[in-house]
Amino acid sequence: MPTVSERDLHDVVRRVLDAAGASAENASRMADALVSANLRGVDTHGVFHLNGYVQAILDGKLDASASPSIVRETANTALVDGNRTFGHVAAKFATDIAVRKAKENDVAVVGMVRSEHIGRLGEYAEMAAAEGVVAIVSGAGYMLGNKVAAPYGGSKGLLSSNPIAIGFPGGEEPGMVFDYATTAMANSKMNLYKMRNEELPAGTVIDKDGYPTTNPTAVQEGGYLLPFGGHKGYALMMAVEFLGQVLVGSDAVEDDGMGTQSMVRQGVSIIAIRADVFRPDADFRRRADELVREARGIPPAPGFEQVMAPGDPESRAQAQRSAEGIPVPDKVWQLIVEAGRSVGVVV
Amino acid sequence: MPTVSERDLHDVVRRVLDAAGASAENASRMADALVSANLRGVDTHGVFHLNGYVQAILDGKLDASASPSIVRETANTALVDGNRTFGHVAAKFATDIAVRKAKENDVAVVGMVRSEHIGRLGEYAEMAAAEGVVAIVSGAGYMLGNKVAAPYGGSKGLLSSNPIAIGFPGGEEPGMVFDYATTAMANSKMNLYKMRNEELPAGTVIDKDGYPTTNPTAVQEGGYLLPFGGHKGYALMMAVEFLGQVLVGSDAVEDDGMGTQSMVRQGVSIIAIRADVFRPDADFRRRADELVREARGIPPAPGFEQVMAPGDPESRAQAQRSAEGIPVPDKVWQLIVEAGRSVGVVV
Repeated sequence: MPTVSERDLHDVVRRVLDAAGASAENASRMADALVSANLRGVDTHGVFHLNGYVQAILDGKLDASASPSIVRETANTALVDGNRTFGHVAAKFATDIAVRKAKENDVAVVGMVRSEHIGRLGEYAEMAAAEGVVAIVSGAGYMLGNKVAAPYGGSKGLLSSNPIAIGFPGGEEPGMVFDYATTAMANSKMNLYKMRNEELPAGTVIDKDGYPTTNPTAVQEGGYLLPFGGHKGYALMMAVEFLGQVLVGSDAVEDDGMGTQSMVRQGVSIIAIRADVFRPDADFRRRADELVREARGIPPAPGFEQVMAPGDPESRAQAQRSAEGIPVPDKVWQLIVEAGRSVGVVV
Repeated sequence: MPTVSERDLHDVVRRVLDAAGASAENASRMADALVSANLRGVDTHGVFHLNGYVQAILDGKLDASASPSIVRETANTALVDGNRTFGHVAAKFATDIAVRKAKENDVAVVGMVRSEHIGRLGEYAEMAAAEGVVAIVSGAGYMLGNKVAAPYGGSKGLLSSNPIAIGFPGGEEPGMVFDYATTAMANSKMNLYKMRNEELPAGTVIDKDGYPTTNPTAVQEGGYLLPFGGHKGYALMMAVEFLGQVLVGSDAVEDDGMGTQSMVRQGVSIIAIRADVFRPDADFRRRADELVREARGIPPAPGFEQVMAPGDPESRAQAQRSAEGIPVPDKVWQLIVEAGRSVGVVV
């Protein structure tokens, strides 16, 4: 398994997307997004995806040179059209608007439709947090192309992995950010189990008849992912669908023949609130630091090494991988080589 | 167990609080709030609490005749001081402001401090939904008086039950509203198990040494509640703490000797978004209806009777109890009688 430096991996992604027809700005942003996911240890959302994006470009599903645009806006809202370009490009554009409007008018909500996969939602919450803004990011509408998740108590698909990220600025500590699929296991993680032919943890999937199973191929054999945390996780999953799809209106997006299966009607919303709307910024940050430190100071339960604050695993991975490089599994490296080959780039 | 009509129960609550010194407006609002919780089947947040509130008044912890006020506001935000009155009164006041500001300026956030227990958070999300407004309601700061919940992987208390409610308007269907404690089991529900001396479901509490247990008295013997859904539920619980406490600044509320133990530094935030910010109201409602109907139409998994949309159990209870009356367990009725006796009212 090669270990690649942040800079070299960034360069590879940029060169491949350049050759695939991406604008320089888009290629650079995509390299930032994918490599930062790997740096933060979220390999399911990193360079693993490069080949898929290149194939989507070659299939005419993704417009690599397009830029997102604002459909309409008010002082506190904006609706963004991704114009079928990279989701990471469109979602950053939408986040920047949400942050600016929140800074100007305390609180804002931005919706976004018509882009490809937006990657790690936590990245957008981190961007907002870095600007002193609280953000709630919801991704939905995937169910309109791919109903991979059953509702609580159900035996057939209704929704999808419905990710949500919520983030808050910190002071001396990194901000508190969480980011997860509302399924018990993300689709991408399940694929890793499948590749390794490992049993899934209990409570993550059902088979085609609705019975619980740990078979890693159950979903491809007609089974479904389950929401995390029983009926409570299911309710959150539904709320994400409302915030990302129903509110934004991504279900009403016209099928123009573009967009990969799950992304045709992807809808994203970003709720942004200035962290200092009710108290001085310094007080917010001091209290945020106290709380995450208090969490880390709780003695672990038997079987656990340490209590972590949400976001700690990502911060740790980043510290290590920035210093030591990013491990890229052989299979992923082959996918990158293949992506390069498709567009005449020797990686 | 007596069955009491909505009207009679409302009248009892109003008369008792009247005699306890509540303003007519506050007594009436409290009767609305408590009886509506029972009507919707959420008995843990209904008239069960009346005696506790009366005792808090008699102890000088709750100012039954006070009204909430606005500390400061902008076009899209307001900070509300509950002035140590009933939480149900203060949180409705805050919700009304959030809804009005969202209607005027698309999106708003309102914070609220210095009140007693606000009851069922879903009620505020339902109020907003009835006005065509999406709402996210977070309650926190309870940990500053009572750290009853351990973090994921921890053996001591960090947070509390940290409830959250999210609600969306519907069309012909009731809006989709969920409302829950981010602990696997609400404190109030655990108390019911304790009263009945029943084993708790697995995964809800740990004992004083951090080991999982199903002993219903474990928490009073030094144990803690667990977050629902493992690390994902814990992350949501932390986010609720940030939204309700850190953002609003309830940790900085001065201890004026008022407020019951968990409520001294309660902080509540209400994020409100007009449902039609991105699409026509009728389209939002039509799509909301489609989604909840699709959920209900999913064939149940083995062992389940029916798939429900979040909020369905409450709607069903309301239909039944509006028609047949509200069952009040003897122990709860005795508490109501006792509340009356404390203030010279024969119930």
